[in-house]
Amino acid sequence: MRDGSEVIVRHVLLLSLLATPPAMARPSAKTPPPDLETTAATLLGQALASDEAYTELRELCDTIGHRLSGSPQLERAVAWGAEHMRADGLTVSLEPVEVPHWIRGEARLTQVSPIDDELGVIALGGTISTPPGGIEADVLVVGSAEELEARAEEAKGKIVLFDVPFTTYGETVRYRWDGANMASRAGAVASLVRSVTNRSLQSPHTGSMGYDDDVTPIPHAATTIEDATRLHRLQQAGITPRVRLELRSEFAETADSFNVIGELRGRERPDEVIVLGCHLDSWDVGQGAQDDGAGCVVVMEAVAQLAALPVGPRRTVRAVLYTNEENGLGGGKAYAAAHAGERIIAAVEDDTGSGAPMGFRVDARTSEGETDEAGVQRALEVLGPYTRLIAPTGADTLHAGYGGADIGPLVVKTGAFALGLDHDMTGYWPIHHTEADTFDKVDPAMVKRNVAAMTVLAWVLAELDSLSPQEN
Amino acid sequence: MRDGSEVIVRHVLLLSLLATPPAMARPSAKTPPPDLETTAATLLGQALASDEAYTELRELCDTIGHRLSGSPQLERAVAWGAEHMRADGLTVSLEPVEVPHWIRGEARLTQVSPIDDELGVIALGGTISTPPGGIEADVLVVGSAEELEARAEEAKGKIVLFDVPFTTYGETVRYRWDGANMASRAGAVASLVRSVTNRSLQSPHTGSMGYDDDVTPIPHAATTIEDATRLHRLQQAGITPRVRLELRSEFAETADSFNVIGELRGRERPDEVIVLGCHLDSWDVGQGAQDDGAGCVVVMEAVAQLAALPVGPRRTVRAVLYTNEENGLGGGKAYAAAHAGERIIAAVEDDTGSGAPMGFRVDARTSEGETDEAGVQRALEVLGPYTRLIAPTGADTLHAGYGGADIGPLVVKTGAFALGLDHDMTGYWPIHHTEADTFDKVDPAMVKRNVAAMTVLAWVLAELDSLSPQEN
Repeated sequence: MRDGSEVIVRHVLLLSLLATPPAMARPSAKTPPPDLETTAATLLGQALASDEAYTELRELCDTIGHRLSGSPQLERAVAWGAEHMRADGLTVSLEPVEVPHWIRGEARLTQVSPIDDELGVIALGGTISTPPGGIEADVLVVGSAEELEARAEEAKGKIVLFDVPFTTYGETVRYRWDGANMASRAGAVASLVRSVTNRSLQSPHTGSMGYDDDVTPIPHAATTIEDATRLHRLQQAGITPRVRLELRSEFAETADSFNVIGELRGRERPDEVIVLGCHLDSWDVGQGAQDDGAGCVVVMEAVAQLAALPVGPRRTVRAVLYTNEENGLGGGKAYAAAHAGERIIAAVEDDTGSGAPMGFRVDARTSEGETDEAGVQRALEVLGPYTRLIAPTGADTLHAGYGGADIGPLVVKTGAFALGLDHDMTGYWPIHHTEADTFDKVDPAMVKRNVAAMTVLAWVLAELDSLSPQEN
Repeated sequence: MRDGSEVIVRHVLLLSLLATPPAMARPSAKTPPPDLETTAATLLGQALASDEAYTELRELCDTIGHRLSGSPQLERAVAWGAEHMRADGLTVSLEPVEVPHWIRGEARLTQVSPIDDELGVIALGGTISTPPGGIEADVLVVGSAEELEARAEEAKGKIVLFDVPFTTYGETVRYRWDGANMASRAGAVASLVRSVTNRSLQSPHTGSMGYDDDVTPIPHAATTIEDATRLHRLQQAGITPRVRLELRSEFAETADSFNVIGELRGRERPDEVIVLGCHLDSWDVGQGAQDDGAGCVVVMEAVAQLAALPVGPRRTVRAVLYTNEENGLGGGKAYAAAHAGERIIAAVEDDTGSGAPMGFRVDARTSEGETDEAGVQRALEVLGPYTRLIAPTGADTLHAGYGGADIGPLVVKTGAFALGLDHDMTGYWPIHHTEADTFDKVDPAMVKRNVAAMTVLAWVLAELDSLSPQEN
């Protein structure tokens, strides 16, 4: 809407939002400019005292629930986010994004030899279905891509299971994303991955996967740590396990969704923008409480805290609730395309759960998407002195690292600094993309600390004299 | 078989076992009687070096699997236990027990208001089914029996959910066992309990429940911590959740099963018996790895270690793999009835998982089943000085406490001391009676330590001059 494009709004509730007047930081000729440190301390105290984000998260989880792209729940969440940010005095806009609509059906993995048993399974997002009745085959278990390569002859006609223990998400998730391609190239009829997690209570984890153009697509699903290791033990004992995999899923027509933006216009440099990002969509299991409901309420409340200041920040601050992060990154790409010409100074993302805040990862990219080492160093130098203002929340470190998926395209297009809020992730991987990503595991004290860290960082970013990579 | 009763043996494999000659501790006129402490140290070292129990547990879990009373898997486990104990040189006997045969069918719990969602659910063992199509009703969530009593008027026609946080197993499990009775008395049409555990990844826990004679039976199932608290939060927010519960299950004809006994005859006092107990049956989920596969392999290996001594123990030692502990205690009752006339000196049970051994709980009972405080004191005094022989395993404490379910009836009938092997149970409740009770969570080092603790305790009990409650 800022750039004059027409917004397709399908909900009466959303239409009503368009009537709200633009929110602004409230500058006044009579009020002296705010002191950066005093205001940071005030924001810290107020954020740590507020229940608002936790209450909003409960509402999102319990009255809307999980919200995969294409689902009515996601569009309810769009309306919910807009409504809350409008009530907080922000200027709300909805920017349309076309999103994929993959629909999960039944999934079943049955061991038929050496004994009959039902195994844990969940379809990975984007997989094709099996034929009716499923695919029954012997299992070849491998511990790595290299082992599959070495044993490729054995894979033909089999169901390949990648039993790869969790190391880091980045290292392990390649088997979820790429496993069907590796297995199909070796002649397998279907593929399974051990769920990407370090701890399990027979918990299957979903997530995205993809097919390369040059392979025959085969069904691809995740089993649990328990059942992956069970099948592996059988193979190691000289017994070839045999299973039947049944998956039903479908791709519907693409759907209309929206990035939801809540803006607080800067009092002195309204054209310089700080983006606080998170994603509103989730996988279609659990409640999407920590992935990424928690990030959304933290971002929403951080901007609300800034909007409540007697004198608002110098630069414009925007909360951006991205759509379709999980299976397409449609929201992140669309936002970057629409705002490429603006002066985006920094983009912050909160998308690694709701554990204790630990600090911020700092990134900078060239227009080719390469890491801009000098830019990262400048950001660390400029922001380093201000971490003491955030340190009471526990987020007392700044280090080079990945900003976040949603803000990634924007950072490349605009040269903005990227920052990612770091959390204690001890409790995160076991619930990630599972039915267990629910509100009860969110600690209200941690939500407050995360809100405080995000609020004070946003204030510093919006207030500092000289900040952008171009300026330093 | 010891008492001449006819054993009904249905398996050819089992029939072959009857031909084995009786195993005996190998006394010899030329060998001096063993030194209690030296032999204890030898047993400790050998048990800590043996992989046998862990290997047996893998075999039980991966090639037989879960084994509820009435299932073919349980009878395969009977044959498996007999075969292993025979190979270890024990005299194996099978004592018939008639067991219930409850068969789980489909279970589904669907939230239909305020939003549609599938909730976690598992039928409790012994529940009746719902009518076809299920039971749809508003939910009344209560936090205790007292709250239900106070709000009984509101329960009429509703599905009552007991959302009771885990404190101890004993305190919390009453809602699983008795919840349907409490709810039915208040006029509810079905009942749900929060799963009996302190930690969950959307994990439903099964277990036994019962109907009082004077109530109308209503369907009774467990939901997860996540969904119990979700429904509770909705109610607290003034929203009445509505759900549909669908349960299919049936009681088949009672089935034939067996207690499996492996005996090592005492060299000096063969008529005085030390029983080492565990249960071979499990719930029909997971692999029954820790409940109680781990206890069985510990007991089997402890007796095997004693059987391998050059000069065996003074008293007879018996491994008893009880059947039907989970839903009937049929094995424990039948064994007590069949052996009431014998001089059972002590009975030890291992049925609280495979965590680190911590010590032993000590119990004694009168013939009326009351705690015999003086007997407990005598046992603590007699055995106390020998805990140092077991202490290197970590099991260095003796304290008054419950012996175990299987040995309970025997202890009352015979006046034997009861001892229960204490484990670190940190990891136990989250997997108890769930799909997550699987082999991968068993630590081989802990199995060795448990075997060592059980072996040395059994040796001490079998060797001490004066031990029985009657003697002290």
